[in-house]
Amino acid sequence: MSELYERCWLRYDKNEAYQENESLFATIVIKGASPVFRAAAVELEIGITSMFGIRPQIVPHAEQSGFIWLGTLEDEEVNGSFLRKKEEELIRSEGYVIRSLVKNGRLCVYIAGKTDKGVLYAVFHFLRLLQMKENIERLSIVEHPKNELRMINHWDNMDGSIERGYAGRSIFFESGQFIKKRQRMKDYARLLASVGINAVSINNVNVHETETKLITEKFLPDVAEVAGIFRAYGIKTFLSINYASPIEIGGLSTADPLDPSVQQWWKKTVAQIYSYIPDFGGFVVKADSEFRPGPFTYGRNHADGANMLAEALEPFGGIVIWRCFVYNCQQDWRDRTIDRAKAAYDHFKPLNGQFHSNVILQIKNGPMDFQVREPVSPLFGAMPKTNQLLEVQITQEYTGQQKHLCFLVPQWKEVLEFDTYAKGKGSEVKKVIDGSLFGYLYSGMTGVSNIGDDPNWTGHTLAQANLYGFGRLAWAPDLSAEEIAKEWIVQTFGDDPQVVEQISRMLLDSWRIYENYTAPLGVGWMVNPGHHYGPNVDGYEYSHWGTYHYADRDGIGVDRTIATGTGYTAQYFPENAAMYESLDTCPDELLLFFHHVPYTYHLKSGETVIQHIYNSHFDGVEQAKQLKKRWEQLKGKIDEKRYMDVLERLTIQIEHAKEWRDVINTYFYRKSGIDDQYGRTIYK
Amino acid sequence: MSELYERCWLRYDKNEAYQENESLFATIVIKGASPVFRAAAVELEIGITSMFGIRPQIVPHAEQSGFIWLGTLEDEEVNGSFLRKKEEELIRSEGYVIRSLVKNGRLCVYIAGKTDKGVLYAVFHFLRLLQMKENIERLSIVEHPKNELRMINHWDNMDGSIERGYAGRSIFFESGQFIKKRQRMKDYARLLASVGINAVSINNVNVHETETKLITEKFLPDVAEVAGIFRAYGIKTFLSINYASPIEIGGLSTADPLDPSVQQWWKKTVAQIYSYIPDFGGFVVKADSEFRPGPFTYGRNHADGANMLAEALEPFGGIVIWRCFVYNCQQDWRDRTIDRAKAAYDHFKPLNGQFHSNVILQIKNGPMDFQVREPVSPLFGAMPKTNQLLEVQITQEYTGQQKHLCFLVPQWKEVLEFDTYAKGKGSEVKKVIDGSLFGYLYSGMTGVSNIGDDPNWTGHTLAQANLYGFGRLAWAPDLSAEEIAKEWIVQTFGDDPQVVEQISRMLLDSWRIYENYTAPLGVGWMVNPGHHYGPNVDGYEYSHWGTYHYADRDGIGVDRTIATGTGYTAQYFPENAAMYESLDTCPDELLLFFHHVPYTYHLKSGETVIQHIYNSHFDGVEQAKQLKKRWEQLKGKIDEKRYMDVLERLTIQIEHAKEWRDVINTYFYRKSGIDDQYGRTIYK
Repeated sequence: MSELYERCWLRYDKNEAYQENESLFATIVIKGASPVFRAAAVELEIGITSMFGIRPQIVPHAEQSGFIWLGTLEDEEVNGSFLRKKEEELIRSEGYVIRSLVKNGRLCVYIAGKTDKGVLYAVFHFLRLLQMKENIERLSIVEHPKNELRMINHWDNMDGSIERGYAGRSIFFESGQFIKKRQRMKDYARLLASVGINAVSINNVNVHETETKLITEKFLPDVAEVAGIFRAYGIKTFLSINYASPIEIGGLSTADPLDPSVQQWWKKTVAQIYSYIPDFGGFVVKADSEFRPGPFTYGRNHADGANMLAEALEPFGGIVIWRCFVYNCQQDWRDRTIDRAKAAYDHFKPLNGQFHSNVILQIKNGPMDFQVREPVSPLFGAMPKTNQLLEVQITQEYTGQQKHLCFLVPQWKEVLEFDTYAKGKGSEVKKVIDGSLFGYLYSGMTGVSNIGDDPNWTGHTLAQANLYGFGRLAWAPDLSAEEIAKEWIVQTFGDDPQVVEQISRMLLDSWRIYENYTAPLGVGWMVNPGHHYGPNVDGYEYSHWGTYHYADRDGIGVDRTIATGTGYTAQYFPENAAMYESLDTCPDELLLFFHHVPYTYHLKSGETVIQHIYNSHFDGVEQAKQLKKRWEQLKGKIDEKRYMDVLERLTIQIEHAKEWRDVINTYFYRKSGIDDQYGRTIYK
Repeated sequence: MSELYERCWLRYDKNEAYQENESLFATIVIKGASPVFRAAAVELEIGITSMFGIRPQIVPHAEQSGFIWLGTLEDEEVNGSFLRKKEEELIRSEGYVIRSLVKNGRLCVYIAGKTDKGVLYAVFHFLRLLQMKENIERLSIVEHPKNELRMINHWDNMDGSIERGYAGRSIFFESGQFIKKRQRMKDYARLLASVGINAVSINNVNVHETETKLITEKFLPDVAEVAGIFRAYGIKTFLSINYASPIEIGGLSTADPLDPSVQQWWKKTVAQIYSYIPDFGGFVVKADSEFRPGPFTYGRNHADGANMLAEALEPFGGIVIWRCFVYNCQQDWRDRTIDRAKAAYDHFKPLNGQFHSNVILQIKNGPMDFQVREPVSPLFGAMPKTNQLLEVQITQEYTGQQKHLCFLVPQWKEVLEFDTYAKGKGSEVKKVIDGSLFGYLYSGMTGVSNIGDDPNWTGHTLAQANLYGFGRLAWAPDLSAEEIAKEWIVQTFGDDPQVVEQISRMLLDSWRIYENYTAPLGVGWMVNPGHHYGPNVDGYEYSHWGTYHYADRDGIGVDRTIATGTGYTAQYFPENAAMYESLDTCPDELLLFFHHVPYTYHLKSGETVIQHIYNSHFDGVEQAKQLKKRWEQLKGKIDEKRYMDVLERLTIQIEHAKEWRDVINTYFYRKSGIDDQYGRTIYK
């Protein structure tokens, strides 16, 4: 990559772990020529040259032993020799095998993909093993991704801004145009491919005037170029579209999905897109949500709306990714009968089975909006006949905006491991979205990007771990947060045990620390409206967004029970419904999401709610200080630039954590009048 | 004026009140030729033609009786004949005489100014009398303005936006340039002159990059053209400047006011401005305030900062208007030792007498920032040796943003009539700012404009009354709010008694109504941060802006007493300090500005604080409904367009008043737990 920005986890630092097998790296045997194959070979060459100071020979056949072999499983050199039939059947088109063999006393490594994409992923896998200094003498890896769709959503606008971006400007757009220099996009594609991402949508789901024209000839040549860059790394390009396009750019008087002229317009438009981009992925659609147009305008439902687009895309193999983030954002806070948390389920569950097979519903992990703590959306598992895609937010909109350290993999793990009980015990979300529970045709996992044109890509250097972790989890949801953290640290900062130990602890503790000093016990939303940074307990309390905590002088929380509340708990399968419905079984960390309780209510931890608020907020700040102390122990073990960058953010985090602590504590002290039992400073 | 926008109070509607004296309007005798004189004559001609359907003859001498005579008091036709010597001495350069005389059985009216500006003001005065159908047969008017400087501050940016503007875009600027079409500026100058405004600053006090260049040759030709338009209506043009100009456009490394190169740069710059605009008014300066640069950067005080500019302007007769809106806007809410209300006094009072004679300190009416209710700034009267100018806000930033009706003249009247006791009883603010109390060389009153390019100029049609009223009060502070309201209504909507009665009541009640349903008892600031519209009780409570109410479960208010609080009351002269210091004498409407009291504290009205909050908020909404009912009684008596425009705003006002009522009531119910004693609906 350029000197202008960081290489993240593709650093390929000098590596002395394989001196006994150096001959391995002298020769690469290449058995393919597609662009993806070429990208794989080039990556391997770059990695080896950088790590071992050896520039490998690229040859079509091995003349002697000691080489790395790149090819597909169909190649006669390996065909039939590597795998049992059963294993081979398991490997999907993106899967691969990596096998070490000693021939004539020299180590050879065979990297064989089912297709060229498999080869690419295998190369990155092998390079990761090398960066982590794993033993490569007895490799026998058979691997393929669990989720078929592993996607990144960009919320980039063509003026170069990024909605909810905290790492600079867009790497795709500036001043209403595509950025001419494409190198950064290429390096971004490498980063994504290295963790197995295979789909990307490049523009904001809120599609404004200029971006509406991305599907026209004005911009399609540029889109095609960008798609070409991604294609070489096995990544399909998608666009977010404006549902009102037939009106806004088509000159029609309607965008009614049942109107033949509208259907015709989309078919023509889609055909044109595919004339530029033969493997175009499809559309991402935010419709009838937060003032975006959609089928509701015409009295149609979401299935009508999505299927119309699906029919246009179907002949080309394209898909529609239809977002379920639909709710009444003009709610009257005085009306307690409405519960925003119920909206997605209420809108979509009745449409189960009505969507075409090339439509996927994209569902946010929780029923609200990417809060630091939410229950899992009850929509997962509730639509056995409709494809589902899990959406998480890599960009830290509500989790510290890349000023605060917040490693989100543990949160995502909890979501993936959550048992929906859709088909009885063992119906975890991960099995819904990998398609195995209901046999979905399309499914997977998408994440909202956290990158921008900052030199370190993600604002906070340690936030790179979230992008890395998202890709790895989407590929292999059974990986643990610990494993992912370690992989990322070693590749990014090296394998010094203290570095690995301290940064691991920092990453793995960080989500809980952030939760400790922000909104308590799952209630969420105590942020400044609009930009969503910093504490504001009543910031959303009297707003139209459907986001309330109902704190009064006696207690706090949202009663979402069937018995006395909004009835939201009924949207879960009975096991979970019962768990959340009862105060006895509702987990502490979600208590205020489901129940309104007095400040003096005793948690399962034994603390009262008010004392928990005080304790967690005092603790959270101390823990934030601890993050900085851990980092300071690494001075000298990390290059000065990255060391100072991170140190600066950790310092800011402490100050802002204090602000959170004091605002929250003062707010609840003023409201409850209850003193901290340990007599710590609460400003009156 | 154009058909594209309203004529406001210069409608000159058809008028049948003077049929007996029609010959009067057939002839205008003109005794002068300056641009201002010409503007006066043209205005009179327009008014007469429009009202009476007569196109008057303009002649240099009267051939026969029955005419309107326009000239100066020096003219031999009137010199010595009109006034006693003593009266004449009283008339300043902007004063005038209007006298009716019957000659040969025909009515003649002599309009005689001290100078051509006096003629212009006298013509507008006479036209006002005609529009109001006053008896003109025995006129004997001797008039001059009380305040020397009667100014409008525009907060217009060159991109066309207006900071705190609620009536469309700028009429001066768009897309970083001056608007080419100048007609609207000319009609605006007419409106201002008609109420006696004689100074205008055309750009925002927050001077950004483009606006910094207004004082360079890039824009001075345009400024000069605009100044020419205003000059013809007796109005001097001022510019807001960026204190860091020597660095930003001068290429110097400092803006230190004591640095000779900086002084030299400003002298050169000022000379250049005057080469374009010989009667340029001077500079408006916001320095060391809300992130604006200023002398503090260089360890200098405000007197150093202002005097340097004053020296540059002095040779040309220009002045420096130096704003006193200086405070720590990065305050820590946890630190109770700081009180923003004290800032202006603390900064400026010690500099009494240190400013040059052509510097005026511009002081906001209250110590905070244009809240619906504040005490008068203690700085008024506290600097006998330094010129002072009162700043009020015509644009309704905190008073409903021209969606709500809020006639501000009653508020300004209270400020003007407030007795500072600076020189004992009878030291009202109006006597400070008209210069009489301390013999100031320069002084007066300025208002932040509420106009934009909306067809009705002010967004809310009835908000025109605030612009009108500001000008009239600046000219004649002793006018009552009732008189001003009546003048404006008759000129704007005609003299139907029901129209006058209903709109008068609407205007005169509106400030109190708005106060009733917003922040209670002078505490202020319960608005959404940033845009400042709509209720948000804690919106500024934990911010860095120094704006707090300290509400907890027991009580509310800011203790600013000497005895137990911030000591702010000590900034007043003893009579006022004692009044505010004591709970017994502090007026109810400012109680929470000065004292922190329990919700159960009894006001002088007999109500408890909490019950007052509930009562005023329930009442406020009913009163807002009443405003609409009054207006509806005027259907058919007002043209449909203006009727519907106002009706629409009054409807919005009711809805938004309900939102205010419910948010405030719920907030305080949740906090206090005290029920409304009348059992009205408070959302829990």
